[in-house]
Amino acid sequence: MGSKYPKSLRISLPFWVLMLEIAFILVFFFFTSYETPSKKLELLKPYPAFQDINVMAVLGLGFLKASLRRYTWSSVAFNLFTLALGVQWAIILDGFLFSSSRKIPINIQRIILGTMSAMSALISSGATLGKVNLVQLIVMTLLEVTAFLGTKKLTLTFLDGNEHQSMMQIHVFGAYFGVAATWCLSGPGLSAAKEKEQRATASSLFTTLGTLFLWIFWPTFNSALLEYPSEKETAIYNTYYALAVSAVVAMSFSAAAHPHGKISMIHVHRATLAGGVAVGVATNLIHSPWIAMVLGLLAGMISIVGAKCLPGCFNRIIGLHDTCEVHSTFGLPGLLGGLAYILLMIEQASWTKLSTVGFQILYSAGSLSLSVAMGLAGGILTGLILSLNLWKAPPEAKYFDDQAFWEFPHLAVGF
Amino acid sequence: MGSKYPKSLRISLPFWVLMLEIAFILVFFFFTSYETPSKKLELLKPYPAFQDINVMAVLGLGFLKASLRRYTWSSVAFNLFTLALGVQWAIILDGFLFSSSRKIPINIQRIILGTMSAMSALISSGATLGKVNLVQLIVMTLLEVTAFLGTKKLTLTFLDGNEHQSMMQIHVFGAYFGVAATWCLSGPGLSAAKEKEQRATASSLFTTLGTLFLWIFWPTFNSALLEYPSEKETAIYNTYYALAVSAVVAMSFSAAAHPHGKISMIHVHRATLAGGVAVGVATNLIHSPWIAMVLGLLAGMISIVGAKCLPGCFNRIIGLHDTCEVHSTFGLPGLLGGLAYILLMIEQASWTKLSTVGFQILYSAGSLSLSVAMGLAGGILTGLILSLNLWKAPPEAKYFDDQAFWEFPHLAVGF
Amino acid sequence: MGSKYPKSLRISLPFWVLMLEIAFILVFFFFTSYETPSKKLELLKPYPAFQDINVMAVLGLGFLKASLRRYTWSSVAFNLFTLALGVQWAIILDGFLFSSSRKIPINIQRIILGTMSAMSALISSGATLGKVNLVQLIVMTLLEVTAFLGTKKLTLTFLDGNEHQSMMQIHVFGAYFGVAATWCLSGPGLSAAKEKEQRATASSLFTTLGTLFLWIFWPTFNSALLEYPSEKETAIYNTYYALAVSAVVAMSFSAAAHPHGKISMIHVHRATLAGGVAVGVATNLIHSPWIAMVLGLLAGMISIVGAKCLPGCFNRIIGLHDTCEVHSTFGLPGLLGGLAYILLMIEQASWTKLSTVGFQILYSAGSLSLSVAMGLAGGILTGLILSLNLWKAPPEAKYFDDQAFWEFPHLAVGF
Repeated sequence: MGSKYPKSLRISLPFWVLMLEIAFILVFFFFTSYETPSKKLELLKPYPAFQDINVMAVLGLGFLKASLRRYTWSSVAFNLFTLALGVQWAIILDGFLFSSSRKIPINIQRIILGTMSAMSALISSGATLGKVNLVQLIVMTLLEVTAFLGTKKLTLTFLDGNEHQSMMQIHVFGAYFGVAATWCLSGPGLSAAKEKEQRATASSLFTTLGTLFLWIFWPTFNSALLEYPSEKETAIYNTYYALAVSAVVAMSFSAAAHPHGKISMIHVHRATLAGGVAVGVATNLIHSPWIAMVLGLLAGMISIVGAKCLPGCFNRIIGLHDTCEVHSTFGLPGLLGGLAYILLMIEQASWTKLSTVGFQILYSAGSLSLSVAMGLAGGILTGLILSLNLWKAPPEAKYFDDQAFWEFPHLAVGF
Repeated sequence: MGSKYPKSLRISLPFWVLMLEIAFILVFFFFTSYETPSKKLELLKPYPAFQDINVMAVLGLGFLKASLRRYTWSSVAFNLFTLALGVQWAIILDGFLFSSSRKIPINIQRIILGTMSAMSALISSGATLGKVNLVQLIVMTLLEVTAFLGTKKLTLTFLDGNEHQSMMQIHVFGAYFGVAATWCLSGPGLSAAKEKEQRATASSLFTTLGTLFLWIFWPTFNSALLEYPSEKETAIYNTYYALAVSAVVAMSFSAAAHPHGKISMIHVHRATLAGGVAVGVATNLIHSPWIAMVLGLLAGMISIVGAKCLPGCFNRIIGLHDTCEVHSTFGLPGLLGGLAYILLMIEQASWTKLSTVGFQILYSAGSLSLSVAMGLAGGILTGLILSLNLWKAPPEAKYFDDQAFWEFPHLAVGF
Repeated sequence: MGSKYPKSLRISLPFWVLMLEIAFILVFFFFTSYETPSKKLELLKPYPAFQDINVMAVLGLGFLKASLRRYTWSSVAFNLFTLALGVQWAIILDGFLFSSSRKIPINIQRIILGTMSAMSALISSGATLGKVNLVQLIVMTLLEVTAFLGTKKLTLTFLDGNEHQSMMQIHVFGAYFGVAATWCLSGPGLSAAKEKEQRATASSLFTTLGTLFLWIFWPTFNSALLEYPSEKETAIYNTYYALAVSAVVAMSFSAAAHPHGKISMIHVHRATLAGGVAVGVATNLIHSPWIAMVLGLLAGMISIVGAKCLPGCFNRIIGLHDTCEVHSTFGLPGLLGGLAYILLMIEQASWTKLSTVGFQILYSAGSLSLSVAMGLAGGILTGLILSLNLWKAPPEAKYFDDQAFWEFPHLAVGF
């Protein structure tokens, strides 16, 4: 039968976290060391970029998910929890997979890579938001970071990819992983919790705050892994122009989607960032601002169309509940970016060597498909594991409810 | 007659934005290119400053205007819209007016200049806040950026000004442009919307958040356009000291303005930043912290006197409604800064060449007056254009109301 | 007797602030000058670190204290006031105590030092939060900055300390100063104001925002005063790892402290940052991530145990009211950090020179004890001065209430 109240995590949560942290500490003890500072000044150079990306992960993605009226605390706090746990696991795994030395050397670049890999779990948790507890979130984070780094290993090994390009698949990977995982979790009783999915004025303003943090620092995200300053530069310019156009498009085209021309705040939260997502993979192939602007325009439109049509249509038919609509925020613009990458590569290829061009196109199409496929497969697997009975999952009536997890003040004053 | 409900922007808003974006993309296609990275490392050097200024424009000015209880969404979101649109137009216009090469080279310095020029529209929109719709905001942004860059062109050409000094007139220009524009828009029926102008606890806290972002990053704003590191340095120190003193003054002198010694949060939002405004133009003439501190002290006091007296007296007499009181936040401290600049130039001039000194004083007085005059003239012109019947302006009963523009949740929970 | 209403500060507050600012301006006029820019580029190098620390002080510590439902305005605004005043006094005093030249040279490093010293008052004011007015806050800030810099002078002169190590004692110093000051202020009538100490959903979210700002920028705080890039580097890594572990621990171990396994948001706000505090002093002795992680784990646990047990037990017995529980947020993890420093020094000492080791241990134990002792003594002295009748302190019924200090909108809408 199952009680109406979520089961207590009093023992299991601290126990598993303690075990995990002891394991991490042992691995760090045996297998890592701080990089010997040979070129001292150089090592600290990426520190500002690291902080920008940290602001995006902690404040940006945390508050982006804070729009549910009764789930603001969990959105922001569990986001930090996921990041802090995920980054430890990502640094270990990344070291084992991609480092050649016996001891993994820890440096800022590696922490940046870890943070970015852990962000895949932050994106996916937007889809499962409000439907899983902290223990499930731990399992999901560990599995997703593993799947993401596995995908990256495959891309780098078999598909001739580079660090930047394989990392930029994070948006499609994260989105489809989350969508697949939440699809396995979605039961028929979700309508009972419908009322709690309401957005409130203040919680939406917090979501706007998160969106704006992401909007401001996105150029750093898209340029952090590029090697040459000139590449970094064009990545920054392209991302900025794409974001500027998609912010304008988000606000104005949302009005077209409403019978009385009213703008939807939900659309704005989705589409403002679409330009940054779309321009990610292709950013070092774009050598003129107008291409970035066109991509920003298209991405903003696609994202709004997705936010308007997916929940009512597609999601209802296949029985999917994507709480923060990561599909239209990250998934669709990411697909557009992948297509743009292939098109730009065709356009810029030297047609004297037809075979090379063919291979390059195959490789980049393969890299995009691999991310989608691995995201979907990993997501379904994770979703199935999470729907097992052993995680003390919250009952559906307690979905989207801070009170299931948090000690609340007696006189709980809402927003 | 006119219906009580604001007219739908469903067709006009997306249509005009699409036209505008297509025009921008075509201009960027034909007339711009990314700067060829010759001195690679140097080009990325101003990136941190760019981000600081972006935080000020997006988060600072956005949340600074978020104090109206029922207009928080529009304040923050329309601010981003204005910036994203204005910066595209500003970069184009700035390129045509000030670049000598056939193709405008895009680099970070140019995006910084564009952002700062677009901030003039962000300042002015504080005065018209809640009284215009998005289509009117587009018109206002385009006209204001044009007027501001025109003023800059005149200053640089005829008044021997430099980049930094002409940009620092943005505060007086923006303030008087906004005041003039809102004066043309103010009708007799504003009292009907009075209740909606109430500040709420939480929305005031968001405004404080915006104020604090501006307070923290203002030193970057005042130093970004200076050429030599030593100038940048003194600009940072001066701005910091002026801001520290005006923050202290804001909190304490506001108590003196209330019969029971209570502090007004509105005064704090106005006067905390006055030091940063006042020290802007003159910053490279100030070679000792005490001058900056005196300026901060005076600016804070003037700003509080303005915030206390203007709305009840001056504004009522001439029938002006300045929603965010940009007059006392940016206008009066900006005038003080202009006067300080002239005084400091007289004090530091070499009196052997009397004629040069005379010219310099004339030039700087001219530059200040030109900004005020162009601001007022441009504002009145813009205000008259905005009050035409063709923009589907919201009716006065719907002023200061998010519901006029936004799709609201059924169960709209207020702050 | 005493009226129920707090006495007006209309005359006294502006008067004392004006006197103080005039005094400061005169001191700056006679005794300071901007540093002559010899190595121009170098001087601007610490500017990003300065801004990070400023974000921590203004936004981090400001919003960290914003959890009281009816005291959010004062928490954030008085925090800025304290900082802006404290930093002016700290720069003057620091210059007189530690500068050898006749005129104190102002540079960014000195402003960073001033900000960090002023942060001691920001930490302590978390303990007295809601119980003092602005005039009392001025007195407390001036006295505390003096006591803190005095402690630093003693440490540097007699205990062989360095800049970094003596500054990192700020957590224990600030915590025990605040605890001692609030102990002298705590009266029997505090229970009357109990209802106002309730946390609300939105104000807790603002507190989370502050916590996250601190979490993100803490690595800069712990590395800013270290001299060599390689030291800065390890400080950044260690702080990051300690914070990552304590964030994970905070969320999970809080569940263990509740009979139904619910997480307490108050515990999360306390324990998330414990790792950063604990790793502060010892950061350049830690050469492997696992030590930082163990410290983060222990600090998080201790902080939660403190947050769970201190208020109900220890505080009640000795009649202490520590509003923001700075004792468990900064005090206990700071003590742990001090102990870790001593242990690490013993472990890494070269045992050939036993006498040197002995001295070093004595010195570092002395430095920790000195900070605690000076904090307690200074706090008690300050508390006694603040409880004098001449400061027009708010009556206990008006504790934790914005309305005692702020002009409120007629229709004050709560959170």
